[in-house]
Amino acid sequence: MSTSAQIGVTGLAVMGRNLARNFARNGYTVAVHNRTVSRAQALVKEFGDEGDFILAESAKEFVAALERPRRLVIMVKAGDPTDAVIEEFAPLLEPGDMIIDGGNAHFADTRRREKALREQGIHFVGMGVSGGEEGALHGPSIMPGGPRESYDSLGPMLEKISAKAADGAPCVTHVGPDGAGHFVKMVHNGIEYADMQLIGEAYQLLRDVAGYSPAQIADIFRTWNTGRLDSYLIEITAEVLSHVDEATGKPFVDVVVDQAEQKGTGRWTVQIALDLGVPVSGIAEAVFARSLSGHAALRDASRGLAGPQPSPLSESEAGAFADRVEQALYASKIVSYTQGFHEIAAGSEEYDWDIDLGAVSAIWRGGCIIRAAFLDRIRAAYDARADLPSLLSDETFAQEIAAAQDDWREVLVAATRQGVPTPGFAAALAYYDALRAERLPAALTQGQRDFFGAHTYRRVDRDGSFHTLWGGDRSEVSA
Amino acid sequence: MSTSAQIGVTGLAVMGRNLARNFARNGYTVAVHNRTVSRAQALVKEFGDEGDFILAESAKEFVAALERPRRLVIMVKAGDPTDAVIEEFAPLLEPGDMIIDGGNAHFADTRRREKALREQGIHFVGMGVSGGEEGALHGPSIMPGGPRESYDSLGPMLEKISAKAADGAPCVTHVGPDGAGHFVKMVHNGIEYADMQLIGEAYQLLRDVAGYSPAQIADIFRTWNTGRLDSYLIEITAEVLSHVDEATGKPFVDVVVDQAEQKGTGRWTVQIALDLGVPVSGIAEAVFARSLSGHAALRDASRGLAGPQPSPLSESEAGAFADRVEQALYASKIVSYTQGFHEIAAGSEEYDWDIDLGAVSAIWRGGCIIRAAFLDRIRAAYDARADLPSLLSDETFAQEIAAAQDDWREVLVAATRQGVPTPGFAAALAYYDALRAERLPAALTQGQRDFFGAHTYRRVDRDGSFHTLWGGDRSEVSA
Repeated sequence: MSTSAQIGVTGLAVMGRNLARNFARNGYTVAVHNRTVSRAQALVKEFGDEGDFILAESAKEFVAALERPRRLVIMVKAGDPTDAVIEEFAPLLEPGDMIIDGGNAHFADTRRREKALREQGIHFVGMGVSGGEEGALHGPSIMPGGPRESYDSLGPMLEKISAKAADGAPCVTHVGPDGAGHFVKMVHNGIEYADMQLIGEAYQLLRDVAGYSPAQIADIFRTWNTGRLDSYLIEITAEVLSHVDEATGKPFVDVVVDQAEQKGTGRWTVQIALDLGVPVSGIAEAVFARSLSGHAALRDASRGLAGPQPSPLSESEAGAFADRVEQALYASKIVSYTQGFHEIAAGSEEYDWDIDLGAVSAIWRGGCIIRAAFLDRIRAAYDARADLPSLLSDETFAQEIAAAQDDWREVLVAATRQGVPTPGFAAALAYYDALRAERLPAALTQGQRDFFGAHTYRRVDRDGSFHTLWGGDRSEVSA
Repeated sequence: MSTSAQIGVTGLAVMGRNLARNFARNGYTVAVHNRTVSRAQALVKEFGDEGDFILAESAKEFVAALERPRRLVIMVKAGDPTDAVIEEFAPLLEPGDMIIDGGNAHFADTRRREKALREQGIHFVGMGVSGGEEGALHGPSIMPGGPRESYDSLGPMLEKISAKAADGAPCVTHVGPDGAGHFVKMVHNGIEYADMQLIGEAYQLLRDVAGYSPAQIADIFRTWNTGRLDSYLIEITAEVLSHVDEATGKPFVDVVVDQAEQKGTGRWTVQIALDLGVPVSGIAEAVFARSLSGHAALRDASRGLAGPQPSPLSESEAGAFADRVEQALYASKIVSYTQGFHEIAAGSEEYDWDIDLGAVSAIWRGGCIIRAAFLDRIRAAYDARADLPSLLSDETFAQEIAAAQDDWREVLVAATRQGVPTPGFAAALAYYDALRAERLPAALTQGQRDFFGAHTYRRVDRDGSFHTLWGGDRSEVSA
């Protein structure tokens, strides 16, 4: 057994297997290990000609096969299985070795693990990987956190296997210490939920209000994909909508059960945003829309509720409406990303991660599910001004929203009157209007809280906290 | 030192002090204890003539003063302080004694504590208390969880000190085992957030779209309070809006900083709903609206964003608009409560609590912040059919929403066109329209997920899971 592997991968389900092959295809010698040895054997048998693999049949063999400092990638289920693998390997490692968790861990777990391993001198890298199976094999977007010095040694390898943006830049960067990488990956997924929900609402409006068929809507999405909405999700939406079910001859989208599933990172994004005090209403509505869709009995019991039936537009009106939907979708998308980047900024501040938001948008330009031309513009916004209060403060985005907003509002008016649910579009507009509001009813909220709970309030004209003696003579006292 | 106290209260900040006084005023002998003895002394000195207090200067004295089985109410801060007090007293107690936590604990903590104390034979009662300081003194709504048998002995006392509904029924019931009481109290607070947000939106619309002054809006709320919206929060809204700031002569609501604060139970309600897979979009928007209002720098940077300025209606139009706002507020309120009760039902199922939703609405009719005539109707709905799929399935509520919905939609149209943020109204309508939708774009979501992640989908016409070979010949395979 040689000790010549530059990297090792343990956990060879489809993501781990493809990541191992990606390293091998890029010229690295890759040690491969799996609890069930046959899976490692199958990899080497099937793909051994793609590069140099070292088959390790035991944990000991695996560790022995790695160059020092060892780089050991674990690709197992988040949660307990990850802890189990760490517990198995950590005692076999030496100071300076790296454990790289490429699973979908919760960033709080990553922080805990990094801290524990740091005490043993082991570098723990929580690494977000986006792009699905195909991305893992051909080039994902990679979001590694952990100690800066581990990136010096690991980074060049990741840069080699990662996706490349249109300008050739590798889609990987050192995101920040400890849990920063998994945090950013989590928000990526939250934004992905919002993108998909907004696309779904656009589809429903084009179908119910404009009266287009799925095939026609596919063509509209194809057109959109040549403009500012150019993105992987818009592209595959056209593919899904144009697909015809072979068994029935019906549009594919009409034979699929309309109950969306989810794996948890969208939910985490909202839960953590709540902890951080960041409003992510667009992402939350996307998560809720999925869970609502799955409550089949509740929906069955509710289908008889009163409401308008959409009356499709004439052909000439439909085209103009489709253009408006594009504006609404684009404006709502700006808001989703504004909320997501706000969450990253807040997380970075809370945990002292010093995350470069421009660099994050840059590495999402390729490889990952939300990859889009749009992200180049976000990068430009943060490169121009790293301390941008929000994406909406960028002049270009502000101008685009200004130009889009009349259409955005009219699309919502149509949806509201015709009874087409558009929680994502509506939440985005409410967020936009709330941010730009001169005054918010939060002043009334504070008055109510002072009335029933003596929670006090501040005044616009003087410093300090105050309380009104509501049950008494209603004079004001300092609190 | 006699051992004649039927109940003891430790932790004598304002809530604990008022609860102790409430017990004493109702004829119970109350042992009082506080870490800083002077606070207990002050209580007895100031309010000793209200009833029988036994001043306990130490934990030992406190426990010794209580009749067996001992009933020991702790009224300290949620979190570590609660654990500290439990650790202090538990060793001094005997099997069958009760520790009653009347603070705002997270129900998961209550479950953990109940389990630990159960092993020592001590009954732990997590007890939600709503009504603020005044409620604690004059009669709160009380939501005790914990072992059924503890309620046999504790319940009659709680029934005596609790608020009474209009029909004389005490606002307390045994909610369910372990954390059920604190869970229900949490959702109560989440609903309270939503109620307050909806009232805030109604206020803003009446001000900006209808052009009314705060004093005029106070009159409108007073009128509403004589109808189906009759409730404590509507009542105090009128009080707050009619209040004039003495220092400036301006409406009070205009001198209060419009940044709302929050203590955490609203956030918990949303976080737990996400874990349970329950869409609570109305409550979430209320929590987000508060946090958004507090991001002062972000709001300052966003005030210049483009948008319409509301142009107030004529006087004759304004009156009709106000009627529409009442419809929108009422319909949105039904949705908030639908979401909140869905969360309670889901929690009850998840944790085997067997919560009686009719009983929960009954005990919210008095004492608590969301007390309202409305709750009598919710009780009637659940009494008529305990397994109601949702409040919207109740015929009366369904009819009321049917009658309200045209106005509800037109209020949202006005808000959307005039740029008044109405996240709560909009989320409620989107939820309603999504529930009644024949088909949702979730089918497209499933298609996208299958495309990029091979996550599979189900078909409307056959059982099983399927995957389309998107990268191949696009045939379908069983998965």
